[in-house]
Amino acid sequence: MTSTPAPLRRYSYLGPAGTFTEAALKQVPEAVGQEWRPVDNLGEALQHVVSGESDAAMIAIENSIDGGVTVAQDALATIPGLRIVGEYLVSVNFVLVARPGVALEDITVVSGHPVAYAQCRAWLDRAVPQHRHLVATSNVQAAADLFDTAKGVDAAIAPPGIDAHYDVEVLGEALAENPDAVTRFVLVSRTAPVAEPTGADKTSLIVELPEDRAGALLELLEQFSTRGVNLTLIASRPIGDRMGRYRFVLDAEGHVRDERVADALLGVKRFSPNVVFLGSYPRADQVVASIRYAQDDAAFREARDWLSAECLGE
Amino acid sequence: MTSTPAPLRRYSYLGPAGTFTEAALKQVPEAVGQEWRPVDNLGEALQHVVSGESDAAMIAIENSIDGGVTVAQDALATIPGLRIVGEYLVSVNFVLVARPGVALEDITVVSGHPVAYAQCRAWLDRAVPQHRHLVATSNVQAAADLFDTAKGVDAAIAPPGIDAHYDVEVLGEALAENPDAVTRFVLVSRTAPVAEPTGADKTSLIVELPEDRAGALLELLEQFSTRGVNLTLIASRPIGDRMGRYRFVLDAEGHVRDERVADALLGVKRFSPNVVFLGSYPRADQVVASIRYAQDDAAFREARDWLSAECLGE
Amino acid sequence: MTSTPAPLRRYSYLGPAGTFTEAALKQVPEAVGQEWRPVDNLGEALQHVVSGESDAAMIAIENSIDGGVTVAQDALATIPGLRIVGEYLVSVNFVLVARPGVALEDITVVSGHPVAYAQCRAWLDRAVPQHRHLVATSNVQAAADLFDTAKGVDAAIAPPGIDAHYDVEVLGEALAENPDAVTRFVLVSRTAPVAEPTGADKTSLIVELPEDRAGALLELLEQFSTRGVNLTLIASRPIGDRMGRYRFVLDAEGHVRDERVADALLGVKRFSPNVVFLGSYPRADQVVASIRYAQDDAAFREARDWLSAECLGE
Amino acid sequence: MTSTPAPLRRYSYLGPAGTFTEAALKQVPEAVGQEWRPVDNLGEALQHVVSGESDAAMIAIENSIDGGVTVAQDALATIPGLRIVGEYLVSVNFVLVARPGVALEDITVVSGHPVAYAQCRAWLDRAVPQHRHLVATSNVQAAADLFDTAKGVDAAIAPPGIDAHYDVEVLGEALAENPDAVTRFVLVSRTAPVAEPTGADKTSLIVELPEDRAGALLELLEQFSTRGVNLTLIASRPIGDRMGRYRFVLDAEGHVRDERVADALLGVKRFSPNVVFLGSYPRADQVVASIRYAQDDAAFREARDWLSAECLGE
Repeated sequence: MTSTPAPLRRYSYLGPAGTFTEAALKQVPEAVGQEWRPVDNLGEALQHVVSGESDAAMIAIENSIDGGVTVAQDALATIPGLRIVGEYLVSVNFVLVARPGVALEDITVVSGHPVAYAQCRAWLDRAVPQHRHLVATSNVQAAADLFDTAKGVDAAIAPPGIDAHYDVEVLGEALAENPDAVTRFVLVSRTAPVAEPTGADKTSLIVELPEDRAGALLELLEQFSTRGVNLTLIASRPIGDRMGRYRFVLDAEGHVRDERVADALLGVKRFSPNVVFLGSYPRADQVVASIRYAQDDAAFREARDWLSAECLGE
Repeated sequence: MTSTPAPLRRYSYLGPAGTFTEAALKQVPEAVGQEWRPVDNLGEALQHVVSGESDAAMIAIENSIDGGVTVAQDALATIPGLRIVGEYLVSVNFVLVARPGVALEDITVVSGHPVAYAQCRAWLDRAVPQHRHLVATSNVQAAADLFDTAKGVDAAIAPPGIDAHYDVEVLGEALAENPDAVTRFVLVSRTAPVAEPTGADKTSLIVELPEDRAGALLELLEQFSTRGVNLTLIASRPIGDRMGRYRFVLDAEGHVRDERVADALLGVKRFSPNVVFLGSYPRADQVVASIRYAQDDAAFREARDWLSAECLGE
Repeated sequence: MTSTPAPLRRYSYLGPAGTFTEAALKQVPEAVGQEWRPVDNLGEALQHVVSGESDAAMIAIENSIDGGVTVAQDALATIPGLRIVGEYLVSVNFVLVARPGVALEDITVVSGHPVAYAQCRAWLDRAVPQHRHLVATSNVQAAADLFDTAKGVDAAIAPPGIDAHYDVEVLGEALAENPDAVTRFVLVSRTAPVAEPTGADKTSLIVELPEDRAGALLELLEQFSTRGVNLTLIASRPIGDRMGRYRFVLDAEGHVRDERVADALLGVKRFSPNVVFLGSYPRADQVVASIRYAQDDAAFREARDWLSAECLGE
Repeated sequence: MTSTPAPLRRYSYLGPAGTFTEAALKQVPEAVGQEWRPVDNLGEALQHVVSGESDAAMIAIENSIDGGVTVAQDALATIPGLRIVGEYLVSVNFVLVARPGVALEDITVVSGHPVAYAQCRAWLDRAVPQHRHLVATSNVQAAADLFDTAKGVDAAIAPPGIDAHYDVEVLGEALAENPDAVTRFVLVSRTAPVAEPTGADKTSLIVELPEDRAGALLELLEQFSTRGVNLTLIASRPIGDRMGRYRFVLDAEGHVRDERVADALLGVKRFSPNVVFLGSYPRADQVVASIRYAQDDAAFREARDWLSAECLGE
């Protein structure tokens, strides 16, 4: 008698092979030897998870290079039933590319996303002192524009490996001043009970601000600070229904099973008209949360015991 | 067969008959027909409660007229086993008194506590334009000083009824600009389970600030504001061990059985090295707590249900 | 003798004719009869201003529809020498488009940016109950993907007028639940002295958070709240040098020549390692700033007079 | 021809010789060899300054032992024309005294101010385990009550030197657990221009809270924290016109000629309906102010230069 082998787990990710997203997926031990499904865009990857076609999707969530991040944040805010279960970091840097045959001294117009350009400016001022910057909406677009003669682009700031996809030559590498730049990826599955705390965890939330009072963001942040919970990400996104209405994407240090985090979430829930809990998961950097003062689980238990015995007389 | 009558309850208060404290005790329905024990000072009244000689003591706790209040606050902060069970307000005003035979035009030096003097200044500037103010440590002392010729006092600002205790003549009544001045009294018993909420309650606390960081008072106040709990009293008292260390006497709107108040108390307890819960009791002014936003018990239950179902997957 | 006519002023904007950006430029009285230069992208428009080829550029700055806004924010943060001189609002809505011959009942996959999709979902659930949503990075991309058969897209959420640029048929109009959605545009010139206050002004800033302490955003927001200055926009952008470092794009009510705004800017400048002042300009909505308490210019003058006379004895 | 000698400066202080107040006055170099005038009470001392009879008065201002401090705070809040010009610290401790012939084992009732009792409790529990505490309104009163047989007091907690004034025997010395307890005195003169900063200064203020909004104390404290100014004293006092209205006595680190302090004072003045500036003077402990981040005078100048050049284009 033979047992039926367990079906492979399926992981969707932004392909093709060689992307940063694939590099992130390679960091997931459970994904080794399973089925990997390259897709064309973030929406397709998340759709696979929602529909059950895949068990999880790896997506870029915080990224200084291209425009994909806010789309990911908006997708997590508006598509129900998703949960972040892991976090992974991939180092990034930039190369300068041009059409074959173009030399550094031929370059006048350099295209690149403004954030990438700001990081690479010192290198460019040294190596291409005569250049002008043309703002691109993404670094992929910058490279593509090399082949649209109407744009007048001579060189592009692009991610390493771009020469595998476009017929370009690399004229410079490691352009960015800061060699530590990374892109943050998250592994997303369907909603499931949270995993146990590891001691170095992160909790992701999306919180809509109440619209009826000034200083609402201050009050939201105090819900965390009064419980001694630090935030590692604070990103605003328009809700989209009208001008001046925001939701905030927040990453808090700690796990929802840490009492101070749960208490902060309760405070946020009472404060906000709409909160999405995206998950508690191990931090990629394995940094243990710093707590400003005694806000550990023991402190929460002692306070409850005090309230019950001293105040309520129970 | 005859049943044994229940023993009378005993109430200690600052006597003799006719004091403001007796006026406060007359407002307590349960005290009618019971045994009232006039005492000479606050300490004796509280001692009666601690020792069991009395069931409760009526004491002045917040009072713009004389210096007795801080002693009461310090006594409640340092004597264990006491609990505030009720709050009562008594209207106060001031009279101008002098030795028999002295007329308004004879007066040069007017003695009085500086706070009382500030309230009565407009009246005095009209009626006794030629007067000078001499600072007294209490208004009782001001009246007593009339009979110490070394002090050179011609008239004193004093509470109404002072002429029943000193051989003085009243030269003016209702001196204070604000006719609404009141003294706040509390009824103190031994520690017992808190009474049920009435919907218009107050909770009293004494909280020591942690000594190791700047901005500690700001953080303490945020424990209340982030839960939408208003404070009606914030009074500082030196802890006494060395300069710059304070405890704060706080009255919060609401009852410890209101979830937002209990949650604020938990936050305060985790924050402070030393918290004394003095009780939750009906407010004398019967004002229902104003809550800044949805921080009622239903909001607390909904947030807990959300945490349990959506975040923890329970 | 004939006088030389003044040269025309040049305005760059995202073309071609018919775009929302052109609709914004039509609201500028000074631009009437001047030279309008349609360009292909934001970078080109700003480049025209920096180089002096144009006097001003109209750009979208806050926009729930496509991804252009963060690029604009990043460009203003990193390109020196620019100044916002005006603000304009253009109403926006969405249409549902498909390839010619496709009917509503044929549609399975609807592509659209997640924010646009969230706004149009109720309409789609009624009119196309059988649809699935595929996330697009922009609504322009959604329409373009109709013609890439590998994407499997049947219909796209797109801006009105899209049928002038793509061979599509409009199957539904006014999809968004909220008919008040607008895109905010700003007119950008080279740095110049600020215009006089109009009484209904806005001040735009880009502020880098100091990296060395928790709660930095809280402290930044307090620089405004303690001066009674409201914020109408709070948007985070990664600085790009490494994970967890942010700059914030802020719009404050009031003009830099209002004392409370100038004082808040001084506080922000002392707090932040890097502040970019983008300008004070009339608000498109002409709403007069609400000031929480006496923080008008007279209050500032009185406080200075008091400090000088009472405290310094000058 | 002989020149007329300069008249002696006159200093009023709480006498008689031997008091703590005299010990404070002995620390004033300028007072050596001048005329010292012992008085009976605080009011008389301040009256001497207001009337010009004395040049300055030494008064206790922060004191864990007796009730004189709040009277001093209230006097400074309500008597116009006074200015603090110096600060002095005097060590304090307690002795246990009884009527002659009474031994430790005879003692049942110990009278003392509750704060003093809390400090001495450990000593009393060891040396007089059978004692009970009776609350006194001051430690002077505690000693006086030894001779009022109706009080039933066996021993009193009192300041050292009490046996020079009362016929008592000292049964124990150095009762307090904390040997570092001190009383803080201030030297008060008529209003005059502030002295130059020494680099280790303190600024005293009395600030009335606006009555029309919750969280007013939080907002007041933020006026200091946003300018990086620490507070070393925060004491509440009832204003006296009706329940729930407070003024706060504040000591801030730094001198009014430090820009961050002046800026905080301007913010406080705009916020509060009534501010009394009591002076900037050298700290007795000579501790240099700790500044949380760059809030020194140079930072203020740089911010002003930036505002003028970058924002206003001046």
